[in-house]
Amino acid sequence: RINGDRLWDSLMEMAKIGPGLRGGNNRQTLTDEDGEGRRLFQSWCEKAGLSMGVDTMGSMFFTRPGTDPDALPVYVGSHLDTQPTGGKYDGVLGVLGGLELIRTLNDLNIKTKHPIVVVNWTNEEGTRFAPAMLASGVFAGVHDQEWAYNREDAKGKKFGDELERIGWKGDEKVGARKMHALFELHIEQGPILEAEGKDIGVVTHGQGLWWLQITLTGKESHTGSTPMPMRKNAGLGMAGITELVHTVAMAHQPSAVGAIGHVDVYPNSRNVIPGRVVFTVDIRSPDLSTLTAMKTEIEDKAPKIARELGLDILIEEAGHFDPVTFDEGCVTAVRNAAERLGYSHRNIVSGAGHDACWINRVAPTSMVMCPCVDGLSHNEDEDISREWAAAGTDVLLHAVLEKAEI
Amino acid sequence: RINGDRLWDSLMEMAKIGPGLRGGNNRQTLTDEDGEGRRLFQSWCEKAGLSMGVDTMGSMFFTRPGTDPDALPVYVGSHLDTQPTGGKYDGVLGVLGGLELIRTLNDLNIKTKHPIVVVNWTNEEGTRFAPAMLASGVFAGVHDQEWAYNREDAKGKKFGDELERIGWKGDEKVGARKMHALFELHIEQGPILEAEGKDIGVVTHGQGLWWLQITLTGKESHTGSTPMPMRKNAGLGMAGITELVHTVAMAHQPSAVGAIGHVDVYPNSRNVIPGRVVFTVDIRSPDLSTLTAMKTEIEDKAPKIARELGLDILIEEAGHFDPVTFDEGCVTAVRNAAERLGYSHRNIVSGAGHDACWINRVAPTSMVMCPCVDGLSHNEDEDISREWAAAGTDVLLHAVLEKAEI
Ligand SMILES: NC(=O)NCCC(=O)O
Ligand SMILES: NC(=O)NCCC(=O)O
Repeated sequence: RINGDRLWDSLMEMAKIGPGLRGGNNRQTLTDEDGEGRRLFQSWCEKAGLSMGVDTMGSMFFTRPGTDPDALPVYVGSHLDTQPTGGKYDGVLGVLGGLELIRTLNDLNIKTKHPIVVVNWTNEEGTRFAPAMLASGVFAGVHDQEWAYNREDAKGKKFGDELERIGWKGDEKVGARKMHALFELHIEQGPILEAEGKDIGVVTHGQGLWWLQITLTGKESHTGSTPMPMRKNAGLGMAGITELVHTVAMAHQPSAVGAIGHVDVYPNSRNVIPGRVVFTVDIRSPDLSTLTAMKTEIEDKAPKIARELGLDILIEEAGHFDPVTFDEGCVTAVRNAAERLGYSHRNIVSGAGHDACWINRVAPTSMVMCPCVDGLSHNEDEDISREWAAAGTDVLLHAVLEKAEI
Repeated sequence: RINGDRLWDSLMEMAKIGPGLRGGNNRQTLTDEDGEGRRLFQSWCEKAGLSMGVDTMGSMFFTRPGTDPDALPVYVGSHLDTQPTGGKYDGVLGVLGGLELIRTLNDLNIKTKHPIVVVNWTNEEGTRFAPAMLASGVFAGVHDQEWAYNREDAKGKKFGDELERIGWKGDEKVGARKMHALFELHIEQGPILEAEGKDIGVVTHGQGLWWLQITLTGKESHTGSTPMPMRKNAGLGMAGITELVHTVAMAHQPSAVGAIGHVDVYPNSRNVIPGRVVFTVDIRSPDLSTLTAMKTEIEDKAPKIARELGLDILIEEAGHFDPVTFDEGCVTAVRNAAERLGYSHRNIVSGAGHDACWINRVAPTSMVMCPCVDGLSHNEDEDISREWAAAGTDVLLHAVLEKAEI
């Protein structure tokens, strides 16, 4: 079993970097705080005897050698970057759980046939630079690296420039590493495990996702002196499409979700009718045909809403992944570990996207989930118990050992 | 008839002070640019033989004496301050039209029984320091001067301090002046006159207004892994209330308008369900009972929309004025002037608030409107023709002469 107190102390130590305003974290990707978090993680890994490699997307790989020189490594890890108002565990638990697993093997002087590598993927959250899971996506050959370098944040800064600025552009070619398997431990970010009193989610599938960005263009004019029939109110169009997205998701219960998260209104003045709005749509389903049907319905009906209000509409695709079926062998290794350790568990579909979803395309992969309080995530109040963290990391350790072979 | 070319040259000269980024103006109240505009206006007025008074709210009054020492003055004017992305005519036309009227009387050596005073009211726009029409509101006894001095801009600077800083705090007691009548010339800021090909709007009424600020509080959580039934989506509530405001306004056509102009979404991230939104409601009607009914309906139905989505709601009042009925004698003077000069005209209700709306409480008042291109205002592209400006100023001259008596 891993050392739950040591794991918890590391989680609390990392959370001091880029503190949020209400007890959570703001350690967005490629900020100075991200750089500081990376240096702390590096120092811990080197103290544990691991050697570092960094690829040209900034993803960090720390290796514990195996006994068989020809055996491919087993990878564990997740991400250290957070949302602007994020929690202390989303991503971080998977990275520091991986480190704790190494520390435990060191303590017990256990050697494995396959090397074990702990990884921190760059820009999982995708808030500052869309899309999410950017570096693991390049690793899996989904995105082109040059395209990734040219992603811009809201201030027009480029991913590639910011990666250089914080000093974490490595020299390894992205995706060159071959993997025997990869496991990612992550908090559920949903309410199912806690509600059912389960310690462990055995992640069999991941939802598919479409991100759209919609721009509605009307005409900014005076809120008082423009008669109702002559308005081109882009804000009203956004309201209609917000409700459309909700309705479309509700029509596919229980296996679909949809919401608008980000909104920009121009000129955003009390007595000016919005002349332009730019907003994002996030729709997901574990079922590909449902996901496709939802996207088609939105692309069909949103322009009608716009047209009726005299608005121009531009719909751009801003992110996408198909539903994922994780590797049967890896899923079984996770379930076996939970069984062996006596933790209650159930199969679960990941509602969120994860680096593991991309890596599943190039290596046998699965995930371990632990509960989080009220299913809350992407929120500074995100919370888990020490016991949940320890149980998840125990299962991670034993799943890794099944694949890495003692 | 007034000199249309001279008027136009003055408008273009004033527009050089505080130029905008796209051909309009940014000459916000109590900025250095406002001070510079005031000095230019002062120099022109003094060249026209007028004597200046400035009150403790910074409003500027330039007097052309009358022949009867006992006769109260007829006032004309508007405001020289602009929106941050404002046009060259909103307010400015009314002030420089007043000056042009004086220059014409001087040219023609016409004396009037009543003195004529040209006025520039401080802070009509209300963008830097809310509310709008601040100095005329104090003049009419609607606001307290100390309260006005304590209005703060977004940087926390106080109105009173900024008025002293730019050197335009005068010594006249605000509201001490008595008026025989007041006329304000203003661009329509709406599309009606242009659409109907009318030269002149005879302003009979002004709409009443309520500004509300609504805060919806839900729970920010992950857009992917939060099941639909467990969401508290504040953005969805805003969408519902945006449509409610529109529906309520549409139920009272043609005499009501309503829109949401300003929106803040927290945390405003693509994959976070909005946990809090703060937005403004602007509803107006020329009919008091309609305005009150609209406000009541919104205050009644918005909380129901919030409750159904599990959201908390806070509705705050942020601004208000009742509908205005302008003085019958002054309205007739404007209509007579348009008739006499052969300009096409129609009665019109002012959709926007104006200094004249407050002054109407303490003196016989009305307004002259001229068309503006596409009804566009509060926009750098705001535009009028030289002929429209001249026609409006001609009508202003003749309405003033009817009241000032030759
Ligand atoms: N786990 C997580 O929140 N990833 C970000 C991408 C997503 O929104 O699913
Ligand atoms: N004329 C004008 O735009 N005044 C500002 C107050 C309002 O929004 O009506």
